[in-house]
Amino acid sequence: MYRARIFITLKKSVFDTQGQVVRKSLQALNFDDVEDVRMGKYIELQLEAADKAAAEAAVRDMCERLLVNTVIEQYGYEVSEA
Amino acid sequence: MYRARIFITLKKSVFDTQGQVVRKSLQALNFDDVEDVRMGKYIELQLEAADKAAAEAAVRDMCERLLVNTVIEQYGYEVSEA
Repeated sequence: MYRARIFITLKKSVFDTQGQVVRKSLQALNFDDVEDVRMGKYIELQLEAADKAAAEAAVRDMCERLLVNTVIEQYGYEVSEA
Repeated sequence: MYRARIFITLKKSVFDTQGQVVRKSLQALNFDDVEDVRMGKYIELQLEAADKAAAEAAVRDMCERLLVNTVIEQYGYEVSEA
């Protein structure tokens, strides 16, 4: 059994309005030294696979086919044994 | 300058409807071996701080005061030098 953690953010070239709002809200709370806030999605899941490489391949496939809108989003992932 | 990555998920005791829907959608795409999908938020930001401990303290403070609804959500974070 493997545990996958997937991080999805807007591509750098896509303006992140939600991140801008969060940055301004943080500054309004006197966190003045905060920059470049990017909001994204985080997905945790468990999967069965023959080995770690197979688990990683499955995660990439899930991202490309369902979880990520690759036109505007980019993703990263970490797979570890659970 | 430090880079913080914040992962926010619903607490285990809170039913994750969105995660259930994603799990079913993945199974409909023949990813049969997927279990326990949890959907959450991912936030990346840069901040100035005197040292790593100060950066981590600031991130915790941001989470508690704005970013996380601690009644139903839990969070984790990683801080590294940027």
